[in-house]
Amino acid sequence: MSRLIGRTGVVVRNIPRADAHVIDALGRLGVATVHEAQGRKGLLASGIRPIQQGVAVAGTAVTVLVAPGDNWMFHVAVEQCRPGDLLVVAPSSPCSDGYFGDLLATSLQSRGVQGLVIDAGVRDSQVLRDMGFAVWSRAVNAQGTVKEVLGAVNLPLICAGQLVNAGDIVVADDDGVVVVRHEEAGAVLEAASQRAALEEQKRQRLAAGELGLDIYQMRPRLAAKGLRYVDHLSELD
Amino acid sequence: MSRLIGRTGVVVRNIPRADAHVIDALGRLGVATVHEAQGRKGLLASGIRPIQQGVAVAGTAVTVLVAPGDNWMFHVAVEQCRPGDLLVVAPSSPCSDGYFGDLLATSLQSRGVQGLVIDAGVRDSQVLRDMGFAVWSRAVNAQGTVKEVLGAVNLPLICAGQLVNAGDIVVADDDGVVVVRHEEAGAVLEAASQRAALEEQKRQRLAAGELGLDIYQMRPRLAAKGLRYVDHLSELD
Amino acid sequence: MSRLIGRTGVVVRNIPRADAHVIDALGRLGVATVHEAQGRKGLLASGIRPIQQGVAVAGTAVTVLVAPGDNWMFHVAVEQCRPGDLLVVAPSSPCSDGYFGDLLATSLQSRGVQGLVIDAGVRDSQVLRDMGFAVWSRAVNAQGTVKEVLGAVNLPLICAGQLVNAGDIVVADDDGVVVVRHEEAGAVLEAASQRAALEEQKRQRLAAGELGLDIYQMRPRLAAKGLRYVDHLSELD
Amino acid sequence: MSRLIGRTGVVVRNIPRADAHVIDALGRLGVATVHEAQGRKGLLASGIRPIQQGVAVAGTAVTVLVAPGDNWMFHVAVEQCRPGDLLVVAPSSPCSDGYFGDLLATSLQSRGVQGLVIDAGVRDSQVLRDMGFAVWSRAVNAQGTVKEVLGAVNLPLICAGQLVNAGDIVVADDDGVVVVRHEEAGAVLEAASQRAALEEQKRQRLAAGELGLDIYQMRPRLAAKGLRYVDHLSELD
Amino acid sequence: MSRLIGRTGVVVRNIPRADAHVIDALGRLGVATVHEAQGRKGLLASGIRPIQQGVAVAGTAVTVLVAPGDNWMFHVAVEQCRPGDLLVVAPSSPCSDGYFGDLLATSLQSRGVQGLVIDAGVRDSQVLRDMGFAVWSRAVNAQGTVKEVLGAVNLPLICAGQLVNAGDIVVADDDGVVVVRHEEAGAVLEAASQRAALEEQKRQRLAAGELGLDIYQMRPRLAAKGLRYVDHLSELD
Amino acid sequence: MSRLIGRTGVVVRNIPRADAHVIDALGRLGVATVHEAQGRKGLLASGIRPIQQGVAVAGTAVTVLVAPGDNWMFHVAVEQCRPGDLLVVAPSSPCSDGYFGDLLATSLQSRGVQGLVIDAGVRDSQVLRDMGFAVWSRAVNAQGTVKEVLGAVNLPLICAGQLVNAGDIVVADDDGVVVVRHEEAGAVLEAASQRAALEEQKRQRLAAGELGLDIYQMRPRLAAKGLRYVDHLSELD
Repeated sequence: MSRLIGRTGVVVRNIPRADAHVIDALGRLGVATVHEAQGRKGLLASGIRPIQQGVAVAGTAVTVLVAPGDNWMFHVAVEQCRPGDLLVVAPSSPCSDGYFGDLLATSLQSRGVQGLVIDAGVRDSQVLRDMGFAVWSRAVNAQGTVKEVLGAVNLPLICAGQLVNAGDIVVADDDGVVVVRHEEAGAVLEAASQRAALEEQKRQRLAAGELGLDIYQMRPRLAAKGLRYVDHLSELD
Repeated sequence: MSRLIGRTGVVVRNIPRADAHVIDALGRLGVATVHEAQGRKGLLASGIRPIQQGVAVAGTAVTVLVAPGDNWMFHVAVEQCRPGDLLVVAPSSPCSDGYFGDLLATSLQSRGVQGLVIDAGVRDSQVLRDMGFAVWSRAVNAQGTVKEVLGAVNLPLICAGQLVNAGDIVVADDDGVVVVRHEEAGAVLEAASQRAALEEQKRQRLAAGELGLDIYQMRPRLAAKGLRYVDHLSELD
Repeated sequence: MSRLIGRTGVVVRNIPRADAHVIDALGRLGVATVHEAQGRKGLLASGIRPIQQGVAVAGTAVTVLVAPGDNWMFHVAVEQCRPGDLLVVAPSSPCSDGYFGDLLATSLQSRGVQGLVIDAGVRDSQVLRDMGFAVWSRAVNAQGTVKEVLGAVNLPLICAGQLVNAGDIVVADDDGVVVVRHEEAGAVLEAASQRAALEEQKRQRLAAGELGLDIYQMRPRLAAKGLRYVDHLSELD
Repeated sequence: MSRLIGRTGVVVRNIPRADAHVIDALGRLGVATVHEAQGRKGLLASGIRPIQQGVAVAGTAVTVLVAPGDNWMFHVAVEQCRPGDLLVVAPSSPCSDGYFGDLLATSLQSRGVQGLVIDAGVRDSQVLRDMGFAVWSRAVNAQGTVKEVLGAVNLPLICAGQLVNAGDIVVADDDGVVVVRHEEAGAVLEAASQRAALEEQKRQRLAAGELGLDIYQMRPRLAAKGLRYVDHLSELD
Repeated sequence: MSRLIGRTGVVVRNIPRADAHVIDALGRLGVATVHEAQGRKGLLASGIRPIQQGVAVAGTAVTVLVAPGDNWMFHVAVEQCRPGDLLVVAPSSPCSDGYFGDLLATSLQSRGVQGLVIDAGVRDSQVLRDMGFAVWSRAVNAQGTVKEVLGAVNLPLICAGQLVNAGDIVVADDDGVVVVRHEEAGAVLEAASQRAALEEQKRQRLAAGELGLDIYQMRPRLAAKGLRYVDHLSELD
Repeated sequence: MSRLIGRTGVVVRNIPRADAHVIDALGRLGVATVHEAQGRKGLLASGIRPIQQGVAVAGTAVTVLVAPGDNWMFHVAVEQCRPGDLLVVAPSSPCSDGYFGDLLATSLQSRGVQGLVIDAGVRDSQVLRDMGFAVWSRAVNAQGTVKEVLGAVNLPLICAGQLVNAGDIVVADDDGVVVVRHEEAGAVLEAASQRAALEEQKRQRLAAGELGLDIYQMRPRLAAKGLRYVDHLSELD
């Protein structure tokens, strides 16, 4: 499969898509919980930031490899999208140009796409917020792009340091973006749900004033490691 | 003219100012559209970011060259400002100090100035937002400056990688900041208005579900470049 | 005292705490004013940014030294906190992991702690905003940490380039974070209050249209330094 | 295969290795030529820099996934190395600690390993240069690491933005680092050799004073694109 | 003239060139001295670094505006070069691709060009050093470029934050790059020579052990500013 | 003591100095070994890099606090220096100007000072290398400074994130810079010497082909953590 990474000139029409209720449930659990639940893998580099605040989405990745400064493949990708998809875009060479603006967002929204994750720049940022089209990007940049060079749609690609396959589930919120393998979605959902349930119990105990030191029984282990309490700074040397 | 860049100790009293309706119209069209319409030139480096969200302004540039860590020239510049002006400030050496706060904003606002573009830092950021004084800056930084060294007012300067002349029109919104030459303002407005009208037509077609592939007749060109569609990833060796 | 910086395996139980009304008054004056009033010292590096907008807090520093990628000491620190405290956290080696999320915030909030300053990352950022728990951090990052290695609580540490002692007063708002020495709090409050009063007078005069050039009697000094006014750019060869 | 990325707790003993003469030939051709010859793919992010100057190497990738601040897996990896191998190391979370120094280099050198590519830091940098052990790293940093957490050896990983499989060929010189798929090594070598031969012909013609404009017959295409020659700047506008 | 910045599709054939002995003398004085002598202006941003060590050059700027990821204009520029020229290159949008390698250097060297200043990347870096072709660049990057889009040759441009006109003198050494206006070259040379002579006198006195405090008669001014000497730290409360 | 950090207008004449043989021995052991031996504390931020290669020094810290863009205090500091001292300089606000060049180096060298550590920029970098004056700095920058504002000499300061007291020992080599407390120098030397001796034994065994896995008896611990060996990648999943 690694021979497909970086290949251009190809569009794959059919991709796997997980059940909508699995995807939605992952989205509600959020990036931090999903990331932990799948063993701390799949997190995109933290340079990818939301352009809006307080929005969380999850969807099936439609992957788009684009040339630097060239957004032609977006138009090819739109046709491959279905409701519930998220566009995941990476340039074949680092580029912070504004690849994406309100026209493309309008087109995607009309097909039921809820958002975009891009390791590059976007523009028309306030219009995108007003439209309710969610974006996670490396930059906001008014400088646009051309339409000259082929890329690829729905091949595996590396976005912000993570491999993303078309059909993988992408979860994005104010903490960042995490990718879940298509074939692991069910298991990750189960693990994440259990984790969230456990956290809810702890939250109630912590809110009631119990200490993590006691809930997690940390005191003996801290003592064994040699933690020492003193009453005043002056007691030290 | 290039001999004037970097010169200090001078204030120029009279600068050209474009018609208010031209300036306002450019402001409504926004940075991305104006930048495209004038041939993708004049965009300030993307490190200059708004401290507020959802605000767009346009105005006549009053240019201020300041010494690093020294904001004395702001007070000199205030006297040269008129309603509708925007202050464009660059330090003569890289500096992220907080040159500007709510007192200077109060003074500028009392003269009808609507905002500030600065390749350095500002402070009192929340008060500035509460006042409705718009700022695009490289940093927010509480560390202030002194008043010891002369700079210049209304000489041409380089701000965030772009040459700005006093009297040029500056347009700023959530996407960044673009400078339009005074003598090109009319032509740029016309080109930008046409562009915006065309985009509006396209937006309606895209919102109705038409594809960019068809609206822009991209399919033959994509095929000529060799784009290949496959049904499944497995068809690719 | 410098021998204590970087030491691990120790918790100091008792720290000095300034009067609540002194702390609250410093918080209302804000970071920029306090920083000026104490002679432009104590400002944390500007890479530490608020995750929320429009929130200002002040509190007594409870200091926490943590290992890279290890948040164990947070749980130890919670027990040492009282209402009005702020957690000030620094890793012993640069790290942008997400050390802190909503569970720890719940625990701190139940003890009356109002916020966190951390030279590292946090997660659950939207939940933290919804809870009203204020955070200033270097990053937002969903990637969590482990609980294996001892750090220290309430020893002096260096956070974002500034020495912070347990018991110092920390003031944080949209402009950044400043630390005030415990023993200087009263004097700084007095100086800052005077400064704020003077600024208020100036603000009213500036709002009324008076120029800083006149209020501060700058014109003779500018002339002495050689500032020259010309009517048009063309007068400069 | 993508399920293996990020997995820990596993060591793969047998990996494919290309013929030594293929690997050596790729090394002599250099990173820029190999990168072009394989269609401009496989280049590691340019933040990975050599700690020495004028050294070029190529070898079989032995891949090592390490935890942040933990170099335990290096010792596990040494045992899997053979003469001609290169270690390719990535942390599972961004980290610039000094994972690697002269002791590990001594151990690797004794097994015939020629160098290291690491998306993190190294130390003992001058000793490494004196030993003739080649390193490409993101940082030089004296701060060391612990040995507590499992990673993986010879699983596929993402290093500086590129997927690297154990057994792939890695070429590194002063321009950076490029990875060649094991199964494509022969074809890439052939393409790169042809490219180098062509370049040598051009180099001789260019050294003799011929212009690229003529050698590559660019003049008609430039004219068709509208390039205009003027004698003096003053002829414009 | 500001209307020419950013314009493409034009080559200017004739540019002013200063006397070779003026240019060479500026090169021998070095960047720091020239920069001081012309009033601390004209220094390119410090992100532009030499790829070699211990090399200083000066030459007439032949300016080249290039599209991002497109080095076509280099070939056009070669034809316009004469012995003693330096190429000064800026992309019209930020780009760190490797625009330039050993073939272009061979072509330029055959025409007597001694070096390149580029606000982008280069490759074949070790070959360039071996050839003795001097380069100051923002990056070293093996990733090459295409030849599709027109730029401009010998129009004024902004390179690393400074305006450069064709015909200006560029001085570059290990400290960075400074541009001297063509029309100011003589005056700057005179000022720089005087400065260097003064520095030589001071160097001899300082080497003999005299203190700057005495040579520059700083003691009274330091005392007037309030500088206080104490014998031991403990004298300060 | 923390009240002295950031204070200006003071010079402390007498500072403690460790025995020359202790200082020299620490210098020979190097930064990485000393840093480990004192419990991984005291390492300056890795942005401070040597301007030369292959040079290691150690000396007594003479501390200099300077204003941004102002190098006046260097002249005051020279008078306080003795043979074997190292200047440790930090600006009171971030600044990358070129504070230091060959004249000041000449003056320091005439007093037996061997080098400079500065959290800012230097210039005349090639001359400094030719003189054999060692420098670790954040930047090389031709832009000079003024002499207007008082700082302090031999007060404690924070340099690149570490507290440095006058009289502390500073060790610097190609890996970076570490500070050793004056009062801990003897103990650190002893610990570092032991560490170096142990490393030498290990180096010989590793060079002879023994594995770290065996020398450090890691195999049982790795097995206990669950490390699994497979013969081929295909055995997984």
